[in-house]
Amino acid sequence: MYKFEELQQIIETQISNINLNNEPYGLYQPIRYTLDSGGKRLRPILTLMATNIFSNHVELVVNTALALEIFHNFTLLHDDLMDSADIRRHQATVHKKWSANTAILSGDAMLIKAYQLIIKTNTANKDQIIDVFSQTALEVCEGQQYDMNFENRMDVSEKEYINMIKLKTSVLIAACLKIGALAANATQKQAQNLYEFGLNLGLSFQLQDDYLDTFGNVKTFGKKIGGDIIANKKTYLLIKALELANETQKEKLLKLISQKNFNKEEKIEAVTQIYRELDIEKQTKTKINYYNRLAITELNSLSVDIDKKLILTNFTRSLINRIS
Amino acid sequence: MYKFEELQQIIETQISNINLNNEPYGLYQPIRYTLDSGGKRLRPILTLMATNIFSNHVELVVNTALALEIFHNFTLLHDDLMDSADIRRHQATVHKKWSANTAILSGDAMLIKAYQLIIKTNTANKDQIIDVFSQTALEVCEGQQYDMNFENRMDVSEKEYINMIKLKTSVLIAACLKIGALAANATQKQAQNLYEFGLNLGLSFQLQDDYLDTFGNVKTFGKKIGGDIIANKKTYLLIKALELANETQKEKLLKLISQKNFNKEEKIEAVTQIYRELDIEKQTKTKINYYNRLAITELNSLSVDIDKKLILTNFTRSLINRIS
Repeated sequence: MYKFEELQQIIETQISNINLNNEPYGLYQPIRYTLDSGGKRLRPILTLMATNIFSNHVELVVNTALALEIFHNFTLLHDDLMDSADIRRHQATVHKKWSANTAILSGDAMLIKAYQLIIKTNTANKDQIIDVFSQTALEVCEGQQYDMNFENRMDVSEKEYINMIKLKTSVLIAACLKIGALAANATQKQAQNLYEFGLNLGLSFQLQDDYLDTFGNVKTFGKKIGGDIIANKKTYLLIKALELANETQKEKLLKLISQKNFNKEEKIEAVTQIYRELDIEKQTKTKINYYNRLAITELNSLSVDIDKKLILTNFTRSLINRIS
Repeated sequence: MYKFEELQQIIETQISNINLNNEPYGLYQPIRYTLDSGGKRLRPILTLMATNIFSNHVELVVNTALALEIFHNFTLLHDDLMDSADIRRHQATVHKKWSANTAILSGDAMLIKAYQLIIKTNTANKDQIIDVFSQTALEVCEGQQYDMNFENRMDVSEKEYINMIKLKTSVLIAACLKIGALAANATQKQAQNLYEFGLNLGLSFQLQDDYLDTFGNVKTFGKKIGGDIIANKKTYLLIKALELANETQKEKLLKLISQKNFNKEEKIEAVTQIYRELDIEKQTKTKINYYNRLAITELNSLSVDIDKKLILTNFTRSLINRIS
């Protein structure tokens, strides 16, 4: 079995080996910039982890894993433009460093590159893998559309929010695991088990993002606390608070969200105060734990030797306990 | 053999049959709007024409032809946004009717839909067809990048311009023909013959666009004459004029292009006057005829019965003689 760091190394090496020194440089250099900007490589590593449960030949799935990482980075390029985000992974986003047009066009080229790689798949279940990829890619677009729709709505329900983050974040994580398994000739049941595990892990992961942004420890979080509050981001915390608030609290919250000029620290404190009154911290933790348990249950019911799935079990634990 | 109108009908029927009534409507309705906005359906019809040369079973290639039309429409959505074009096919462009974000995201979904369809290809040479598609898709992005690069340059050479329109326009037309042929099990030589035919036809087609926009007959052209001049578009006419102009003419031309406030009719007349002095009309016609001849030569050397390629020959003639 490969170790986490070994899989990470395989991915890093392969990414730096992709040839992007072609003309026109204005098209290809932003792709190199994006792929070199790091990130956790969570998706391709999960793909290879899933493969490694069923096979020692992870090298056969590397192109496929790479395709999933490039696809993920394509969504970041376009999403950051749509969300007007200036910084990603501590550096300027592509539309800030170059232009909106560059983010659009280089993003398009990345989506095509991702397909070029996944079509090269020379493993078991090739057709199904490509189908899962396309279906997932469309769902990710749907998730982004719902996310944008929610921006102007104050009545988003918890159910709608969970469905949105499922589409925007979880289905890709789930698909990586399923594709990795299918490529190594796992049974449909095993592949689906891993897909469901990934869905729940993804939901827990995104809810933790929401949680840490407000309730994380500033020493360990790595970013400033309260960024979501300042940006009026519709997080699980805000949606749950709007749902549970009484008239007075709701009015206060809506007023805070609609403020154009405000002192950042004061706004963070005021919103967090309402969250405290409504016990949002505990509500969110409960929800995170709920999806964690579902994820672990799926992993437990995966019919392979325990030692084969140990790496995934440990990885899940590290994600569950993450503080940044 | 199918007639042109029959192939057109097949495409129109299939396009209206694509199910786009899914939620979120904000993602899928702009796709329906775009696909319903008409256009000549040149690319899918050429695909089926190429198939029909070698086989009676054009129905087997319909999904593939559709993929190529959806891909083309995806490029229009993103290009119109990048070029800030407000009108396409007599209706508001997607980013005008909805928003820039909608144009980006619905465009992305169209590219994925195009892949979903082309991957369904169940014909001869499936892998090669998908490879040609991906390669072409990247080249179209490259063409758009060069086009944008040229916006701020006054020293674009004729050679660079031809290469740009080849990438932006011709390779897709060429790929449609090649893919149609490959799907019907044509030989590699026949498929390549049709590809080269398409490249030259595409170049002639784009140069004619440039030509008609300035020298077309207002009664038959369908659009206002001089749109490219008003928009300072880097057409073959302008590039050739900048190349051939003497110092005085060049200075005059550059001044006209850089004007922020101007009377439209006066500007069109002044630029056209310089074109006349430099005999740009004839220069452009000569170039169009050059590519027309190359296209016809490729078609003549295609080793199939003359009556099989009659539809393509006639179609080429109609394009050569088009006035709108």
